[in-house]
Amino acid sequence: MKLTLKEIAHKIDGKVIGDETLEIFGVSSFYDAKKGEITFASDPKFLKALGRTCAGAVIVPDDFDIVPKESVNDKDNSALGFDEKIILPLSLIKTQNPKRKFFRILSFFHPSKKPNQTIAKDSVIGNNFIHGYNLTIGHHVTIGDSVKIGDNVEIMHGVYIGDEVVIGNNTLIKPNTTIMDRTQIGSRVIINSGTVIGSDGFGFTQDSLDIKDASGGGGVNEKIPHAGFVQIDDDVEVGACNTIDRGTFGRTWIQKGVKTDNLVHIAHNVIVGEHSLIVAQVGIAGSTVIGKRVILAGQAGISGHLKIGDGAIVGPAAGVLNDVESGQIVSGVPAMPHKLWLKVASILSKLPEMRKKLIALEKNINLKKINM
Amino acid sequence: MKLTLKEIAHKIDGKVIGDETLEIFGVSSFYDAKKGEITFASDPKFLKALGRTCAGAVIVPDDFDIVPKESVNDKDNSALGFDEKIILPLSLIKTQNPKRKFFRILSFFHPSKKPNQTIAKDSVIGNNFIHGYNLTIGHHVTIGDSVKIGDNVEIMHGVYIGDEVVIGNNTLIKPNTTIMDRTQIGSRVIINSGTVIGSDGFGFTQDSLDIKDASGGGGVNEKIPHAGFVQIDDDVEVGACNTIDRGTFGRTWIQKGVKTDNLVHIAHNVIVGEHSLIVAQVGIAGSTVIGKRVILAGQAGISGHLKIGDGAIVGPAAGVLNDVESGQIVSGVPAMPHKLWLKVASILSKLPEMRKKLIALEKNINLKKINM
Amino acid sequence: MKLTLKEIAHKIDGKVIGDETLEIFGVSSFYDAKKGEITFASDPKFLKALGRTCAGAVIVPDDFDIVPKESVNDKDNSALGFDEKIILPLSLIKTQNPKRKFFRILSFFHPSKKPNQTIAKDSVIGNNFIHGYNLTIGHHVTIGDSVKIGDNVEIMHGVYIGDEVVIGNNTLIKPNTTIMDRTQIGSRVIINSGTVIGSDGFGFTQDSLDIKDASGGGGVNEKIPHAGFVQIDDDVEVGACNTIDRGTFGRTWIQKGVKTDNLVHIAHNVIVGEHSLIVAQVGIAGSTVIGKRVILAGQAGISGHLKIGDGAIVGPAAGVLNDVESGQIVSGVPAMPHKLWLKVASILSKLPEMRKKLIALEKNINLKKINM
Repeated sequence: MKLTLKEIAHKIDGKVIGDETLEIFGVSSFYDAKKGEITFASDPKFLKALGRTCAGAVIVPDDFDIVPKESVNDKDNSALGFDEKIILPLSLIKTQNPKRKFFRILSFFHPSKKPNQTIAKDSVIGNNFIHGYNLTIGHHVTIGDSVKIGDNVEIMHGVYIGDEVVIGNNTLIKPNTTIMDRTQIGSRVIINSGTVIGSDGFGFTQDSLDIKDASGGGGVNEKIPHAGFVQIDDDVEVGACNTIDRGTFGRTWIQKGVKTDNLVHIAHNVIVGEHSLIVAQVGIAGSTVIGKRVILAGQAGISGHLKIGDGAIVGPAAGVLNDVESGQIVSGVPAMPHKLWLKVASILSKLPEMRKKLIALEKNINLKKINM
Repeated sequence: MKLTLKEIAHKIDGKVIGDETLEIFGVSSFYDAKKGEITFASDPKFLKALGRTCAGAVIVPDDFDIVPKESVNDKDNSALGFDEKIILPLSLIKTQNPKRKFFRILSFFHPSKKPNQTIAKDSVIGNNFIHGYNLTIGHHVTIGDSVKIGDNVEIMHGVYIGDEVVIGNNTLIKPNTTIMDRTQIGSRVIINSGTVIGSDGFGFTQDSLDIKDASGGGGVNEKIPHAGFVQIDDDVEVGACNTIDRGTFGRTWIQKGVKTDNLVHIAHNVIVGEHSLIVAQVGIAGSTVIGKRVILAGQAGISGHLKIGDGAIVGPAAGVLNDVESGQIVSGVPAMPHKLWLKVASILSKLPEMRKKLIALEKNINLKKINM
Repeated sequence: MKLTLKEIAHKIDGKVIGDETLEIFGVSSFYDAKKGEITFASDPKFLKALGRTCAGAVIVPDDFDIVPKESVNDKDNSALGFDEKIILPLSLIKTQNPKRKFFRILSFFHPSKKPNQTIAKDSVIGNNFIHGYNLTIGHHVTIGDSVKIGDNVEIMHGVYIGDEVVIGNNTLIKPNTTIMDRTQIGSRVIINSGTVIGSDGFGFTQDSLDIKDASGGGGVNEKIPHAGFVQIDDDVEVGACNTIDRGTFGRTWIQKGVKTDNLVHIAHNVIVGEHSLIVAQVGIAGSTVIGKRVILAGQAGISGHLKIGDGAIVGPAAGVLNDVESGQIVSGVPAMPHKLWLKVASILSKLPEMRKKLIALEKNINLKKINM
């Protein structure tokens, strides 16, 4: 597989600065790229280091004002703020948003494998199955009754799909995933392996009466039946080994464009707003509402029944016990405004010194008292 | 499916206040309920808002002293502390513990699907298999040798059950769960999907000698064989994607009535006492003993070889490094008494201000010194 | 199964002190062991308590200077620092590294089950499959195209192995594991159940342009294709329900001898150096490099693009936001030198008292000001 720079430029609405006939055989990162490969540079840090990549070509921003090849050894170069070592044996493609365009070229060189559009004979499918064109079902899959699936869907090895599940078009369910009954999944959704969707929420009723009873043998935590379901809207990607519980009644709702990383826990009746990003090992307790375009950084924990406003950012490992306003950035345990947390965090390590000073001051003052 | 209020009252030992012939077609939450649905109100917050639900009927506490329908527009109403808007077009059922009774009615309208009591032909079962009545085994299940299973057990799609596993009556193993050899599971247990029970503990021997050897190629961390097993007693529910390691020798023991949420880690030789609740993403390190009726809130971490007393509560994301006495409530990292943590937590955000004051005081005193 | 002490001593290069003909029927822990069982004591705590185990024999260090049986009631005994109750009805085996030797004996009494060296008929294997001697493939396994597997490999129930995966010799893949395409796994590796290797990393491109577009319906987070893979070297053990993402390009690399506990998350392009130990629920963000023989304690979180030096130790639940030097021990959130963290942690609970003092001092000084 190869492309000339001209062909690449055409694919990404770019303009070649250099050799249009250069042949590119692959993509790589800035410092790993070799002669026949293309990479990208979108921020000054990399743009200034253009002379240090061994790539054959680099995708750069539209407005990048490079010194023309011919004058590269001129003193003007450093005047432009570039690394003095830039002696560009490489070609450039100027375009908008180089990073995104680069990933398009990456997709060209590493196309995702086309599903085989067959239904494995060892898969088991229930009654009243309705499905669209180009369905792929892998081996050892079980699909329940009254399931409805759209076009171009791929369901990989070992997946379980319960009764009355609905799946849209172009959705991919990776191996060994569990989708419990009545889950609703939109189009262009990806569910990564090991994930469980529609498990029962962690809900139990407990009362003093029963605790007395229990000494006689009864259980004290009676399971609350979970009559709700999970709804996952279009363009969502759910990471590996996530657990998304069904609603007690009503739905747990992952809205359009949300992306979750691995080992994320989303409890019953949570709503995650459009295009929010949930990083690895985050936990969200029951009935909390996450707004749109929110970012929850890794290992953050969000208590139940809270409201996290649109565009809010929660820092890594933060412990959120109260509502967060739209656009706010919070960090720490308990979560506080991020700027405040930065100060607090920097003072934490000075606490021993502060304590010493405080004790010294106290003595000092007491001494004075005595002296007076 | 429908029930009259009279029929519902009969099912939950209640007394109808209002129209006994009213037909109920489903259940819902307080504010989502519609005319043909029933909901419940167990605390003053909801009882005062009875006029605001659109439910046809509400289950309320036995001792709830409602103004009779006829006098609802009297001034007495507000005197009783109710919302002035209460104009009860709804009927009530008075009973003990409305929440729990409500969930019984919920179970009636949303009965769990009856297992089909068949053994899928594509499941594989080892030698010396002993089982009781009404066994259901789903598709693509593997069961090892010398497994013993009680009555009314359901094992769903893709489950692996190792050799010499024992399972009691009325237990449900959800899809894609892994139960390694020699695990013992009681009656009325539910294991949610993706969970792994009986994995080897994280135990390795390491010694200086071997570290030297290793430079010559050997491994430095030699695996400790795990000869123990996991025992799960009656009425336990294990959440999705839990990992419960087997004992090094002896057992890891989850006692009667324990409930774990999702993504919980329980290490080798841990004991979790009866009726304890372990919320999502908690981790318990090796050989720790958790007492009875303990609550470990979400993301808490408990170090190894500790003892958490009966009835103790560990707050969310707390880091427990020492034993916790019975009945104590601890929070924070490192864990401390909860009330103290609340104070500490509130002071954390004042640290920058405290530091400024301290520095100012110091200067002040030094100035005085100079002045004196 | 039984062994005489003489036979055991022979197996572990030890010397019997006591009855060489004693028959041992099993192993157990120090305080649980019974008459026919052997245990070990490697540190003074247990060596001093030798009189308190009921074991028939104890493996002790080479240089352990025990009072001979005959003189055990002499006063010399306490002079040697032993528990006065030592009246050794037990025999000893002296050897180097008793703990490790003990586990060898444990392995003898609890041998791991020998794989049956058959390929289950219901497993599905793709084209161009190459494999060595003694291959065991369990039920309901799917193996993709162009997979290459060495000798003595066991792949258990429900495992998915994608295209072009390579696996060395003597490797064990436990049930319900997912190994995505192009993963490379070495020899003597163990992958525990529920683990996902080679999932796509959490990488999305986002730009302001698209956010504007999105209001018109487009997705704001465009998926970055993941063209890389995961490489797992020899002698690695991966715990249950781990998620190890593939590189964006290039590899995510788990080097020789690394051991991970359960529910660990390792993001794209992370490198974990040789013989490092990663305890349960740790998360490592993208492109971070962990050195050799590092220990990451439970629930620790490591930010992306960091370097953790060789031999460093990160404490439980620590939040590492910066590089850690080789050999350093860090703890806390944010992570700081462990000794400093110990001080800080001990002061945290004194903050309320410190604050009171500070306010009192302030008043005191202000009063003085007024008085002056």
